[in-house]
Amino acid sequence: MKILVDANVPAADACFGALGEVVRRPGREIAPGDLRDADALVVRSITRVDAALLAEARCLRFVGTCTIGTDHVDTRLLAERGIAFASAPGCNAEAVVDHVLVSLATLAERQGWRLAERRVGVVGAGNVGGRLLHRLSAMGIDCLACDPPRVEAEDLVAPGSGAPADFVDLDTLIDECDVLCLHTPLVREGPHATHHLLDAERIAALAPGTLLLNAGRGDCLDGQALRARLAGQGDISAVLDVWEGEPGIDAALRDLVELATPHIAGYSLDGKLRGTHQVTRALCRAFGLPCRVSLDELLPAPPLARLELGPGLSTEEALRLAMRAVYDPRRDHDALQRESRRQGMAAGFDACRAAYPLRREFATLEVALLEAEGQMAGWLTGAGFRVTTA
Amino acid sequence: MKILVDANVPAADACFGALGEVVRRPGREIAPGDLRDADALVVRSITRVDAALLAEARCLRFVGTCTIGTDHVDTRLLAERGIAFASAPGCNAEAVVDHVLVSLATLAERQGWRLAERRVGVVGAGNVGGRLLHRLSAMGIDCLACDPPRVEAEDLVAPGSGAPADFVDLDTLIDECDVLCLHTPLVREGPHATHHLLDAERIAALAPGTLLLNAGRGDCLDGQALRARLAGQGDISAVLDVWEGEPGIDAALRDLVELATPHIAGYSLDGKLRGTHQVTRALCRAFGLPCRVSLDELLPAPPLARLELGPGLSTEEALRLAMRAVYDPRRDHDALQRESRRQGMAAGFDACRAAYPLRREFATLEVALLEAEGQMAGWLTGAGFRVTTA
Ligand SMILES: NC(=O)c1ccc[n+]([C@@H]2O[C@H](COP(=O)([O-])OP(=O)(O)OC[C@H]3O[C@@H](n4cnc5c(N)ncnc54)[C@H](O)[C@@H]3O)[C@@H](O)[C@H]2O)c1
Ligand SMILES: NC(=O)c1ccc[n+]([C@@H]2O[C@H](COP(=O)([O-])OP(=O)(O)OC[C@H]3O[C@@H](n4cnc5c(N)ncnc54)[C@H](O)[C@@H]3O)[C@@H](O)[C@H]2O)c1
Repeated sequence: MKILVDANVPAADACFGALGEVVRRPGREIAPGDLRDADALVVRSITRVDAALLAEARCLRFVGTCTIGTDHVDTRLLAERGIAFASAPGCNAEAVVDHVLVSLATLAERQGWRLAERRVGVVGAGNVGGRLLHRLSAMGIDCLACDPPRVEAEDLVAPGSGAPADFVDLDTLIDECDVLCLHTPLVREGPHATHHLLDAERIAALAPGTLLLNAGRGDCLDGQALRARLAGQGDISAVLDVWEGEPGIDAALRDLVELATPHIAGYSLDGKLRGTHQVTRALCRAFGLPCRVSLDELLPAPPLARLELGPGLSTEEALRLAMRAVYDPRRDHDALQRESRRQGMAAGFDACRAAYPLRREFATLEVALLEAEGQMAGWLTGAGFRVTTA
Repeated sequence: MKILVDANVPAADACFGALGEVVRRPGREIAPGDLRDADALVVRSITRVDAALLAEARCLRFVGTCTIGTDHVDTRLLAERGIAFASAPGCNAEAVVDHVLVSLATLAERQGWRLAERRVGVVGAGNVGGRLLHRLSAMGIDCLACDPPRVEAEDLVAPGSGAPADFVDLDTLIDECDVLCLHTPLVREGPHATHHLLDAERIAALAPGTLLLNAGRGDCLDGQALRARLAGQGDISAVLDVWEGEPGIDAALRDLVELATPHIAGYSLDGKLRGTHQVTRALCRAFGLPCRVSLDELLPAPPLARLELGPGLSTEEALRLAMRAVYDPRRDHDALQRESRRQGMAAGFDACRAAYPLRREFATLEVALLEAEGQMAGWLTGAGFRVTTA
């Protein structure tokens, strides 16, 4: 079997090497002729998989994309031609949750409040939002969720549904929460459209002191309205990882935002390897082969393996310390400022993404507690760390 | 023996309890009557020790101040009356060096350069500056020093003087260094006066890209001239811990500075306890008593005891990680912004100092290197950490 793989897919040899002959090509250069004798194709978002690309394919039985998005793949065509398809939904969701939690903790420190005293509203409770709700509630943080499509499909409001938070409508969530986290996809039409879900009216209605985070899609939020509120009253604050008009984003908005990052919330090494691994498993299923490679084997040892905490830290201090030792989003904020000044906004935004430093997830860190500390172990475990106690 | 001690002196019982009867009084309230039967007095900078305070003292044989400054003590009067005196020079110097090194590393990350490629000039090579030069050169960072009083007294320029850097005059240092660290005391008159040592002319002459740090005294630098250069050309950057007119400092200057902190560079717990310990030893000497308490016994276990680093970090990344896990000056920068907005500048500045969080020194952290890494162990050791290798 011949497996054609985008040269930028990490761990391709470890994953696909035992299954067949692996041919690597730069994603932009994959051409119809390359597919003539390929049995499987594994891409990232840079390769358009459409009728033109598949024109010469004769034995292709599987297409996989190691990304959560599938806009670049004509899935209907694949279905018509009986070609199995898989993407990697949720592969980088844990990384986004890491980003949101550490951003929250950093804003709490900066603004002088405690996570434990805030209520967090999560809009869009899918792969990312669902995991965020799970970790927040495991940390004992009060939360509410809003996800009308899921509520319609799953009857989540019912007591005993096992959900980590109550599901409410968006305006109730805005009314009752101090922190809003947006994790919706961009949906332009229909009853649950998300374009400017937070529109000028809702942004104007946010209570003073509200913290707004968007790591879903930039267009879910009216950036001009947010900029006006931040520049005018300046009584709310924002953390943005996604923007309208990426990569040429609004510099004035960026300057008003507490943490401004270039759509990198999900950029962990773990997430990338998880993506390859998910596609590998799907490929094995498609060909009826056993999948012998585990995600753990693919992951290298982390740069920061272990922290030992002694006495004297509050739970929230310990949490901040552990989180930021693994990943501090202020680095990415500073890099965007620097590179957009040097190269211009669009080029700087893209440069930060292209040269993104290696980042690991919270779960790679062992936090050893040398002294028994009431709720600290629970919070750290809830936040995603491996916690050991003496 | 009766030892009268400012109630805010930490570890007073552990240090003085075995030597006599310890009486604690709030520093502001220590009155002549309290000294009637005291054999020793231990203060901080809040208590003025002058003829009025000593009016009723009959058996006082020792005065100690657990501070590096002695302006609040009439040392001539003590000498006249045969009362031994001690302060705690250098007690918090290591903390200031920690602050300077982590600020440097943070600016390197933010601005995208490497410590290894910069030359650092240290102005004032006393307790703080001398230790800074020592650590920088132990890390292999190129440095120059400027300290005319020491050069006159000690003939430091001579080859083989063992100094960690060459001593040059101020203008040569400014010409040849990328980073300037000011650690001079305020001297208003004489050949080596330091008031506006960095005056408008010198500030105007700084090469573009220069980074200026002041953790000595605010008046050693012309703040108005610095503000003009930062606001105008904006081609140099600054890190200030000390300011003209503290606590009512210039808000416009603060907003232009990369890291603006409220004179807390030296505020480590280790430094405070070292101060008490230095005075204890002096008191024992004065009374011919053995000093049985060691500094190590006084220091509590640190909140962060140990880091284990695996593969994949550059030396400078490892250094930043270890430093900021112990102490991240961005916390103090954010606190000054927040509290000065809430309470006004002077009250906010003082509030940050009064409620300063417990901070430990780099030397309290063990960094375990799980993989042999060329220069990493040397840099981390040079920076002040206890490094162990597998
Ligand atoms: N910033 C990053 O680096 C990064 C990384 C990963 C994902 N994302 C983005 O985050 C978004 C969510 O990703 P995901 O993997 O969780 O997707 P998902 O499809 O698993 O979940 C999206 C959820 O949003 C819900 N939703 C849809 N319309 C809604 C509406 N009008 N109101 C409330 N909820 C609504 C859906 O029902 C679904 O549960 C996507 O847009 C994705 O592109 C960003
Ligand atoms: N920011 C803080 O929290 C903090 C903490 C500790 C000390 N300090 C300040 O830092 C300064 C230095 O402290 P230290 O303990 O090292 O003092 P120190 O007296 O040990 O050293 C000062 C050095 O400056 C030199 N010097 C004097 N005039 C000079 C000149 N014109 N040019 C160059 N060098 C000159 C002296 O010769 C001496 O070597 C003091 O003003 C002190 O108040 C600040």
